[in-house]
Amino acid sequence: MNIKINKNFLNVSENYLFSDINKRIKEYKEKNPNADIIRLGIGDVTLPLGKSVIEALIKASNEMGNKDTFRGYPPEYGYDFVKEAVKKYYLKNNINLDLDSIFISDGAKSDLGNIVDILGDNKIYIPNPVYPVYLDSNIMSGRIINFINGTQENNFLPMPNKDISNDSVIYLCSPNNPTGATYNYKELKKWVDFALKTNSLIIYDSAYEAFINDKDKPHSIYEIEGAKECAIEICSFSKQAGFTGLRCGFTIIPLELESEGVKLNKLWKRRQATKFNGVSYPVQRAAEAALSDKGIKECMDNINYYMENARMLSEFFDEKGIFYTGGKSSPYIWFKCPNGMNSWDFFDYLLQNANVVGTPGAGFGTFGEGYFRITSFNTHEKTKEAINRLRKLL
Amino acid sequence: MNIKINKNFLNVSENYLFSDINKRIKEYKEKNPNADIIRLGIGDVTLPLGKSVIEALIKASNEMGNKDTFRGYPPEYGYDFVKEAVKKYYLKNNINLDLDSIFISDGAKSDLGNIVDILGDNKIYIPNPVYPVYLDSNIMSGRIINFINGTQENNFLPMPNKDISNDSVIYLCSPNNPTGATYNYKELKKWVDFALKTNSLIIYDSAYEAFINDKDKPHSIYEIEGAKECAIEICSFSKQAGFTGLRCGFTIIPLELESEGVKLNKLWKRRQATKFNGVSYPVQRAAEAALSDKGIKECMDNINYYMENARMLSEFFDEKGIFYTGGKSSPYIWFKCPNGMNSWDFFDYLLQNANVVGTPGAGFGTFGEGYFRITSFNTHEKTKEAINRLRKLL
Repeated sequence: MNIKINKNFLNVSENYLFSDINKRIKEYKEKNPNADIIRLGIGDVTLPLGKSVIEALIKASNEMGNKDTFRGYPPEYGYDFVKEAVKKYYLKNNINLDLDSIFISDGAKSDLGNIVDILGDNKIYIPNPVYPVYLDSNIMSGRIINFINGTQENNFLPMPNKDISNDSVIYLCSPNNPTGATYNYKELKKWVDFALKTNSLIIYDSAYEAFINDKDKPHSIYEIEGAKECAIEICSFSKQAGFTGLRCGFTIIPLELESEGVKLNKLWKRRQATKFNGVSYPVQRAAEAALSDKGIKECMDNINYYMENARMLSEFFDEKGIFYTGGKSSPYIWFKCPNGMNSWDFFDYLLQNANVVGTPGAGFGTFGEGYFRITSFNTHEKTKEAINRLRKLL
Repeated sequence: MNIKINKNFLNVSENYLFSDINKRIKEYKEKNPNADIIRLGIGDVTLPLGKSVIEALIKASNEMGNKDTFRGYPPEYGYDFVKEAVKKYYLKNNINLDLDSIFISDGAKSDLGNIVDILGDNKIYIPNPVYPVYLDSNIMSGRIINFINGTQENNFLPMPNKDISNDSVIYLCSPNNPTGATYNYKELKKWVDFALKTNSLIIYDSAYEAFINDKDKPHSIYEIEGAKECAIEICSFSKQAGFTGLRCGFTIIPLELESEGVKLNKLWKRRQATKFNGVSYPVQRAAEAALSDKGIKECMDNINYYMENARMLSEFFDEKGIFYTGGKSSPYIWFKCPNGMNSWDFFDYLLQNANVVGTPGAGFGTFGEGYFRITSFNTHEKTKEAINRLRKLL
């Protein structure tokens, strides 16, 4: 065969983060078969779905087996019943979304990756460290990437600066994965004002918004005035409702967003109508249920369970005086490795001396080096035990 | 905002096919409120899912509500249990697939649209008429498109010809949507031999393979020797198992496929790992059930129901001596409009004089002009009644 491939793919670096972690755990276990390893590296929800969600799933599944209630192709942009539920969810924060600005999808990761389809060759700004999809999807499109860096000085919340060009595409993630750092209203307003002033687009990943428990921090960028003129927001049922295994997310492209005389909403409509065929009907019913009053309460019970772990972990780092971000308004705690250790050395040190597993910060970008992520997705019991072991060690 | 959009999107022509159809029906109904309209334009399955599929959906949904059986993120390329089921399904036709060559997705449409991501700027050949996704996704990527035309002379089965360049990407769809025309072994072998000789890639859409009921016609391109060196196959649970509303499909990228020193399989792995997060767990369990022995039997009961409609319709066109393709090995019947009428005039004629709705062939490409598609997805009773009306008219 002698066809041309997309050579940009060859510039994406292989990420062996989680396979490396698993390899090191495996080797350690072979040498120490009785070690009681506690995993605080989990980046996935662990609690089962709420009762309302399961009931909706089963009801819709049964409908698919009955000729009078069977449904074929779903609408490419989502059933109105889910879009209405999202609209109502945003109204809690006084955000009034056009129904046509809401696109239901099979998950935030798909949308964050596919959004590059509708954009041309722009200057791209990506936080460092951050979730790797923004970087990789832009490399695959042949874009030249610039970074906005998270450091101890800015509490891992990069802010606008004069080095950022006009007419750019800027990715923001708040609460951030992996640092847990979350913009407050004032900080996010600076970004919106900057985007408006520089004619830039913000792609705002709010997948972890349901973990925000601080009145000073916005759940959505559209809580900031002017954001509908400069921001796309991509969110998910994965964290709010534990849908990582069910697959449902949504993207909001305000009708106001326009560049080169074209509505971005119209471009995304076109993209989704051509390359997507809608979300599974039972999953859309489950998503609707997750956003009902009862569903939200059940989802928040799960989130509060995780956040109690985050609270215990934060308390420990406060007690030790170790620098960290997250732990509040986020299931992630991102802390500085002790004694200037690098991320991977600390990984080994923690595994060998406390039998606790986390995630080396270097896996999320160069500015993650020297930092470490632990998560609150394990049980209370295991989290407490991990803290006891950390207390002896740090 | 002043960012660059992907201007290739502006070259995609708006397809108003189905909205135009609905508009004309609506206008007709307003004038003729008592008209008993029979829809033979349906391109979607209508029978409910089989019992095995529903049971699997419900079982898996319940698992998601229990802490011991809950599942988070699915594997990006699909659970092995579905991949194994696909492998076994292909073994029925003596095709032995590497498990790593099978990628489970949320549907054939997504894969057919997204496959352009991994390809460079090649010469593209697309059947005319055909399912519009191949054309639109390539226009969105800025490709220059060439057509391979279906005509009455080639029974709407375009064959290799000397005008097709070396090193090309060639789309084939068999059984074809909308024409129902299906390549036999000898014809498909000519394409495989041609692709091998010209170092080209075939993207083979086999979404309708389960409708093939002719031993002379291959269900998969991999039944042809050498196809693993030149073809990607994209298939779906939508037609085989009625999954249009559940969303599941799969793509096969043989490990043998290599160009410019790079395995296409590796590129697609990379694409899916970055821009996709796997298929809903209950849907994957449903797909597994659809490919069990019991599931296949239930699915074939539905397909046989549709194919009885196709048989009745074919018999009618045979009786009238009207040229058509499909009707065998396909739920679609594609026939020549009488008296040289164009597609849309015939649409109106049929609507007004028989109260039967179909789909104008011109909506699927310029070579569809003068042809018309009707489908077998209505009930036996409605199909019979439609034939009675057509008999009086044609």
